Amino acid sequence: MPTIVQKFGGTSVADAERIHRAARRAILAKSAGNDVVLVVSAMGHTTDHLVDLARQVARKPSKREMDMLLATGEQVSIALVAMAIQEAGHSAISLTGAQAGMLTDSSHTLARIKSIDTSRLRGYLAEGKIAIVAGFQGVDPSFNITTLGRGGSDTTAVALAAALKAETCEIYTDVDGIYTTDPRLVPQARKLDRISYDEMLEMASLGAGVMHGRSIELGMKYGVPIHVRSSFTDMPGTMIMNATPDMESISVRGATLKRDITRITLLGVPNRPGIVAGIFEEVARRGIFVDDIFQNAAAATEATLGFTVTHDDLDEVRAAAADLAKKFAITQQQVEPGLARVSVIGVGMRSHRGVAATMFQALARASVNVENITTSEIVISVLVRDSEAERALQVVHAAFGLGG
Amino acid sequence: MPTIVQKFGGTSVADAERIHRAARRAILAKSAGNDVVLVVSAMGHTTDHLVDLARQVARKPSKREMDMLLATGEQVSIALVAMAIQEAGHSAISLTGAQAGMLTDSSHTLARIKSIDTSRLRGYLAEGKIAIVAGFQGVDPSFNITTLGRGGSDTTAVALAAALKAETCEIYTDVDGIYTTDPRLVPQARKLDRISYDEMLEMASLGAGVMHGRSIELGMKYGVPIHVRSSFTDMPGTMIMNATPDMESISVRGATLKRDITRITLLGVPNRPGIVAGIFEEVARRGIFVDDIFQNAAAATEATLGFTVTHDDLDEVRAAAADLAKKFAITQQQVEPGLARVSVIGVGMRSHRGVAATMFQALARASVNVENITTSEIVISVLVRDSEAERALQVVHAAFGLGG
Repeated sequence: MPTIVQKFGGTSVADAERIHRAARRAILAKSAGNDVVLVVSAMGHTTDHLVDLARQVARKPSKREMDMLLATGEQVSIALVAMAIQEAGHSAISLTGAQAGMLTDSSHTLARIKSIDTSRLRGYLAEGKIAIVAGFQGVDPSFNITTLGRGGSDTTAVALAAALKAETCEIYTDVDGIYTTDPRLVPQARKLDRISYDEMLEMASLGAGVMHGRSIELGMKYGVPIHVRSSFTDMPGTMIMNATPDMESISVRGATLKRDITRITLLGVPNRPGIVAGIFEEVARRGIFVDDIFQNAAAATEATLGFTVTHDDLDEVRAAAADLAKKFAITQQQVEPGLARVSVIGVGMRSHRGVAATMFQALARASVNVENITTSEIVISVLVRDSEAERALQVVHAAFGLGG
Repeated sequence: MPTIVQKFGGTSVADAERIHRAARRAILAKSAGNDVVLVVSAMGHTTDHLVDLARQVARKPSKREMDMLLATGEQVSIALVAMAIQEAGHSAISLTGAQAGMLTDSSHTLARIKSIDTSRLRGYLAEGKIAIVAGFQGVDPSFNITTLGRGGSDTTAVALAAALKAETCEIYTDVDGIYTTDPRLVPQARKLDRISYDEMLEMASLGAGVMHGRSIELGMKYGVPIHVRSSFTDMPGTMIMNATPDMESISVRGATLKRDITRITLLGVPNRPGIVAGIFEEVARRGIFVDDIFQNAAAATEATLGFTVTHDDLDEVRAAAADLAKKFAITQQQVEPGLARVSVIGVGMRSHRGVAATMFQALARASVNVENITTSEIVISVLVRDSEAERALQVVHAAFGLGG
């Protein structure tokens, strides 16, 4: 019997009515002749409420105890979803991460799945039960409760789908699929029927928020087709899958915008071995996350080193830049906040020429000044002023005919 | 190192401030040189909230899923209490029922503890950690989460104290101990320093609500001294323990009142073998719980059979009595609601004479009509009209000099 994994996010189980809707979907898939495993997140704002409770008790709660606390959110959801399926006259059983055999390492709040013992789960499926598994959580080898960090329930769902060799992993969410770009910024944005794992990974890391990178990587590694769709309609959503030849006939699949970027430029960096490494060690030590790095060749003894960061506290970034200049005998440092990155993504770029030219022409026609350019195999990104960012996204989206 | 188990009920961990207060008590006991194990209940009205969620989803939620749901309440509490102890600079670790080795049978919502594997817990105590265990919950042999029913957290605490051979099991609650009677009804009621397990068991079953019978039985079986005390003051409370000779020098330890009792009297019950058994089978089948039974000898062929019940639905009781009369060819049935039972309890009764006489004289002087009398080794109970019940309790309480 084919197996389907269905994952319901927090908004899809936020109240009794939505829980019954999720239950009906599971029953429909079961009645269609599938073994069905549900993975559910904590209801609505439960996690926020629990985090708030912890903050009332401790300034800096220990990570192990945060995991113990937060894991209750999904446990409430699985029990309620199981009750809803039973209420509709079907057989169901809920399982915590531990009961579902989700073995992780011991990195509390950011644990990684080491292995999944699906024997108990398979037993219930063989009995004809719909199994409901708590997303986001697992146990370490010492039986401590762990959680998987942001996007953890998606990771649980895709990992279970891989372990059970499921036909598909359906991700039910409050949007109806993956779009060519953010429809709030570009009304012409169009829902995609399909997108490759590679493209989705880049979209996710460049600002498209629907799914977390880790679950997409897992899907790619184990070849699990991931169907992102709405929990409120029956319309098909977007299938994340391996690229097919006809998917590569289109050069650009989507476009993204990432805001609040600050560029730091260090002028006259002494051209000695170890200096660049020293600079980035220092930046990392301060907890500042570096996005992109670009270095211009200059005089033989000096170089210009630029990098972008997305850090909340601009004063910290300025202080860091000043300290770097002093510490490494750098002539001059510039800190430019208020930048944004516009990117186009497509596996078709590998075989299509002229993608960069089309992008730059569109931006030039719209008089958008390009501050910087970075490229990878399936991505072209430009840095622009934040005030011009939405316009830049719109013209690029139109230039590649991505609109509906 | 001596071990102390401290149990905090729902009102004692209802908010951040009370959680910190519980944490301070644990730290104090730890600093005084004890190994400390905390057992905590769900915060305030958490359980009610969870039950309400279940009712929104299903008319009759399955017991297994109710256990899965309700167990989250205690899991939230243990994480928060552990955080509070850590915040105060001490080492602490939280454990679910499963992690604490609380193995039960599979009777969901009413599970019984089969054994406790304390090895993990002992390991943490040996490391100097304060261990915080979720009350009310365990796991069955198939690793399903179970709960222990009413008073479950007390049961967890006393069972753990027995398994760890603890010095005492401290029960922190919102009252400051066990009283000679309910102080809301008799202002002269006095807090007891000590009470025997036997007396406490009778008091609990006769209406004193502080502790559930199961945990007292456990304490008696394993000889665990149980200290019932207030979580809001440092005053000592009441020690529940084995009776000592000097405890037996007092004839009556306390008095109780149980209300909403209905008496059913069946007149002219045919005096044939099996009739009485048949009557009580029929009553049990209807889900009506019988309190006391009294039979008067009568003519050789007929008897008068009386029993009391505490049932919510008087119409059901009346219907049951009428059906009984018809089914068993009984001449006449009487149903008298609005009765109450006043009892005095004391292990000293075994060696003191005249206790019954003192009680009846007091009631007679107050013109309270006694409807019925039942006695056991350490209890004398009378049935009175509910309208006279509080007065009856007051005069009996005074007659034995129980007041402060």
